[in-house]
Amino acid sequence: MLMIPGPTPVPEQVLLAMAKHTIGHRTAAFSAIAKDVTENLKWLHQTKSDVLVVAASGTGAMEAGIINFLSAGDRVLAGSNGKFGDRWVKVSRAFGLEVDEITADWGKPLDPAEFKAKLEADSGKEIKAVIVTHSETSAGVTNDLQTIAGYVKAHGALMIVDAVTSMGAASVPVDDWGLDVVCSGSQKGYMMPPGLGIISVSDKAWTAYESATLPKFYFDLKAYSKNAAKDLTPFTPPVNLYFALQASLQMMRKEGLESIFARHTRLRDATRAAMRAINMPLLAADDVASTAATAVMGTDKADAVQIIKQCQSRFDMSLAGGQDHLKGKIFRIGHLGFMDDRDVLTATAAIESIVRSMGQDSFTPGAGVSAAAQVLMG
Amino acid sequence: MLMIPGPTPVPEQVLLAMAKHTIGHRTAAFSAIAKDVTENLKWLHQTKSDVLVVAASGTGAMEAGIINFLSAGDRVLAGSNGKFGDRWVKVSRAFGLEVDEITADWGKPLDPAEFKAKLEADSGKEIKAVIVTHSETSAGVTNDLQTIAGYVKAHGALMIVDAVTSMGAASVPVDDWGLDVVCSGSQKGYMMPPGLGIISVSDKAWTAYESATLPKFYFDLKAYSKNAAKDLTPFTPPVNLYFALQASLQMMRKEGLESIFARHTRLRDATRAAMRAINMPLLAADDVASTAATAVMGTDKADAVQIIKQCQSRFDMSLAGGQDHLKGKIFRIGHLGFMDDRDVLTATAAIESIVRSMGQDSFTPGAGVSAAAQVLMG
Repeated sequence: MLMIPGPTPVPEQVLLAMAKHTIGHRTAAFSAIAKDVTENLKWLHQTKSDVLVVAASGTGAMEAGIINFLSAGDRVLAGSNGKFGDRWVKVSRAFGLEVDEITADWGKPLDPAEFKAKLEADSGKEIKAVIVTHSETSAGVTNDLQTIAGYVKAHGALMIVDAVTSMGAASVPVDDWGLDVVCSGSQKGYMMPPGLGIISVSDKAWTAYESATLPKFYFDLKAYSKNAAKDLTPFTPPVNLYFALQASLQMMRKEGLESIFARHTRLRDATRAAMRAINMPLLAADDVASTAATAVMGTDKADAVQIIKQCQSRFDMSLAGGQDHLKGKIFRIGHLGFMDDRDVLTATAAIESIVRSMGQDSFTPGAGVSAAAQVLMG
Repeated sequence: MLMIPGPTPVPEQVLLAMAKHTIGHRTAAFSAIAKDVTENLKWLHQTKSDVLVVAASGTGAMEAGIINFLSAGDRVLAGSNGKFGDRWVKVSRAFGLEVDEITADWGKPLDPAEFKAKLEADSGKEIKAVIVTHSETSAGVTNDLQTIAGYVKAHGALMIVDAVTSMGAASVPVDDWGLDVVCSGSQKGYMMPPGLGIISVSDKAWTAYESATLPKFYFDLKAYSKNAAKDLTPFTPPVNLYFALQASLQMMRKEGLESIFARHTRLRDATRAAMRAINMPLLAADDVASTAATAVMGTDKADAVQIIKQCQSRFDMSLAGGQDHLKGKIFRIGHLGFMDDRDVLTATAAIESIVRSMGQDSFTPGAGVSAAAQVLMG
């Protein structure tokens, strides 16, 4: 049982779609799938712009989202309050971009006012792009993308977004918020296995593409866009992962955007209520807590690493650990993608049982599960 | 029924392995798979060097194989006698390399003597790498990689190989032939769906890596190598495609290298004998014919495009067409990966029937299938 922020559990119908015989990718049958996938991706992204699919992990998608629209020496403003924010700083520097960082402690959100100040001070319009991780799962925090995007739009720079763990788990209205490049990966809100990267590209970003000079070939998004217009792909696509993506997007469409987002919010709130009830400290504050994953700190009696180990050995349930300087200090409960109320009840019951057996018993037995159940009842 | 040079048919046990529930990639269970896969990839590549797996198509693997070991402005010698050779010239130029091309008409092999002459003339050792497509499936031709690699070794440049349709279909003894970088893709000889790129890297290539300055992050092979040493991956791997790769490599290991190569040779020879018997002209000569695919020219009576269409509509069998200037002029029969004698008998019988119905009847009925059967009997 996977309760980690990706890879996430995959519905049986998606797994079985993936097990169908591979078909040629230059066929009418494949093009029909590509067309259906594109339409549903635009629906999920709430956009009329291009939404493209590349064979790569989420990191590959973000790299594509950066290198297609910028040139070496370009100044970018990158927010970093966790492992993924840090990664996009590294990617940007690897490609010779001049990176100004706006940071916050892991567990705290980025401050939109800092973006506003830097952008307003940039009267020469030297900042070409702003890069922000929407849901920073390494610390379970959601950044205020809408507000930041507003400042970026006023300035004129490109808004490049890592929505890897928010797309499908929270509303990311690409057109309404004016997001120019939005990257995500298949193994998160999409309820399917890893292997596909997804990237939306606004008209403004395509204009920037024309003057961007970073070298590219496999990740040259114009080739994907030209082919997508004909329901084709520039290189051999992972055909069976497309089968899976088609099936999962059809499931999502049936559930509806509002239901999907409400479900994620409910699972997050139930998880947090349960952890509070068993006196396990939460890393992020309520108003910025990610709908993808909840980060919980270990206590003197209930060590984070031991909780993860026992969850695996006693209940065959995977939780995630902390990364970098939070390694050993936190555990993370994923509630992202193909998850329902039962999963959260199960996970909170298991964690409550383990925490209690470790000697942290300053709560009424059953308090955690009850608190979760209360939230789930609405 | 897929009779194209990729994607190729996938065995049921590989499809079902892929349909297993996704597992976390930072677990002992995943590392055990990664370890098994690495060992079997080294066996298949006949090498003691690193063999790395990236989430990408074969084109992504080739891009990784080029950009990790070279710098902008470096001179490379690239062989081109088909669509894929052309593509590596484009990739090289996209990354600012100075490309000298050695070409041959599509359907003809590259001449090793031309490589020898260019390399011997390069006394200043300006040529940093030589790029060759081993099996050029766009024209059904195998290039003499062993001889070319010998000249490259004597010169000191890196030998970079596109083995996308030869790995698993013909012997590619990486260490014996001194191949520095060898790239392949999962949807060919590996008998699995597309989505994984595979790259072997020699010690000499790793030395070149140290001074190579082309920017890279997602395709930075050193990160893959460091993680592979711990049976990990730097980014989220396509877990379910790893399940498939493990299953297919285990099948290949059971069949044995010699049997795999003999089977491909037999299927190719049977296909060619059948086409000759029904008076369909072959594009490539016998001694250079690819074991992955056979390219057949259309005739006045039997048009290539019509043969492909009728094969699909009458027999639900996919053949491949020609690419670029050969579009409409040839059709291609794949005999690569999970294929056996029955598949070739079926395909040649279908093509014979179609050709005859088009009015090309200058052969004894059954002559094509009989010729194939004769070869298959050995």
